[in-house]
Amino acid sequence: MSLLTIELLTLFPGMVEGYFRESMLARGIEAGILEINLRNIRDWAEDKHHRTDDAPFGGGAGMVMKPEPVFAAIEAVKKPESTVVYLCPDGELLTQKMASELATAKHLILLSGHYEGIDERIREKLVTREVSIGDYVLTNGTIAAAVLIDAVARYVPGVLGEEKSLTQDSFTGNLLSFPQYTRPVEYRGMRVPEVLLSGNHAEIERWRAQKRLERTRLRRPDLLNKLSQEQ
Amino acid sequence: MSLLTIELLTLFPGMVEGYFRESMLARGIEAGILEINLRNIRDWAEDKHHRTDDAPFGGGAGMVMKPEPVFAAIEAVKKPESTVVYLCPDGELLTQKMASELATAKHLILLSGHYEGIDERIREKLVTREVSIGDYVLTNGTIAAAVLIDAVARYVPGVLGEEKSLTQDSFTGNLLSFPQYTRPVEYRGMRVPEVLLSGNHAEIERWRAQKRLERTRLRRPDLLNKLSQEQ
Repeated sequence: MSLLTIELLTLFPGMVEGYFRESMLARGIEAGILEINLRNIRDWAEDKHHRTDDAPFGGGAGMVMKPEPVFAAIEAVKKPESTVVYLCPDGELLTQKMASELATAKHLILLSGHYEGIDERIREKLVTREVSIGDYVLTNGTIAAAVLIDAVARYVPGVLGEEKSLTQDSFTGNLLSFPQYTRPVEYRGMRVPEVLLSGNHAEIERWRAQKRLERTRLRRPDLLNKLSQEQ
Repeated sequence: MSLLTIELLTLFPGMVEGYFRESMLARGIEAGILEINLRNIRDWAEDKHHRTDDAPFGGGAGMVMKPEPVFAAIEAVKKPESTVVYLCPDGELLTQKMASELATAKHLILLSGHYEGIDERIREKLVTREVSIGDYVLTNGTIAAAVLIDAVARYVPGVLGEEKSLTQDSFTGNLLSFPQYTRPVEYRGMRVPEVLLSGNHAEIERWRAQKRLERTRLRRPDLLNKLSQEQ
């Protein structure tokens, strides 16, 4: 049995099929650690035209996703232990910490909206958590759901393989990561920093820790403030 | 000629092909307003094994993207007016405002990393802007590039169609959007708010403006603080 099962409810499964097939997540899916089911909400549209959207009450451009197919879809895949996440720009901001927490869930249902959003009654009645991947608007939530799945799946044991430690990632300890270099040692007159060629592991660790701090101070001082507030 | 041309450089074009085919962006691409070229960096790997990555100097798990294929790929597609964006967790945070600014560019080159990132010399020499889609780490930057493209493309005139106004989106005026409802008027005992059925457009506008403010105050008071700082 998989460690984490994710049901992604969308009107456009084809948007992200390629992602789950070609990304690193495919390994975890093949190994049976991770189960990702793409479900087409349209399959639960029961009227003869399989309509999933209608005009917004009160007027305005665009369409709103109707309650009936979404209620039916969620109720079909829901389990007592499910967390139902709706991806939307007015949700709680996704962070590295939230991703690691969601990875401990047993069963995630992700609902992705489209058009002008979904009928508010779905949000009130069925959704347990509303998440935004950032302060910008997208044409649909399916790609946002794929981003959330990717960020979460990295924390499911075995998905990234045994060798990979997550402790040097950006945001671990609220610090950004350090600069990376690979061969050749010299490229177009630019050399790899000598310390990285020294073989002195203590020196290398010191240099990397220093760079993490410098880069965070320069680019994202807000993360350091967060750190001192947490302490 | 398209209004905006985007070159997406990646090791895995197949991850997002479906996205550009099935999302609303497809309309803009078909209409010739938007041009999105998926380029496989591996096509510029000149050694016989087509290697694009190597072990990091200084040690550590994972692989780093080598400079040569990326330099060659960027130089092959670059124009004098290009903006070269690298997607990475330590970049500047993508916002709605940045998306609207990038939509006025003529030629965007998006570079998506994989593994442990890219050789720092690429960042120093070729990249003009580093962007992060949020404070979390992904297994690769290709999906982040697709998110950026989606957020930006919405601002290219004609992509969303004539009818759609962007002024009621979340983040416009630093406010979240209002709740949406569609038919049926009553569903499982839950009714659409009466004002939306009233046909009184002035009242509806007032209600929506009020809801935007309430929702922002409740969920994202930081956006309101930003607003008062800007004034």
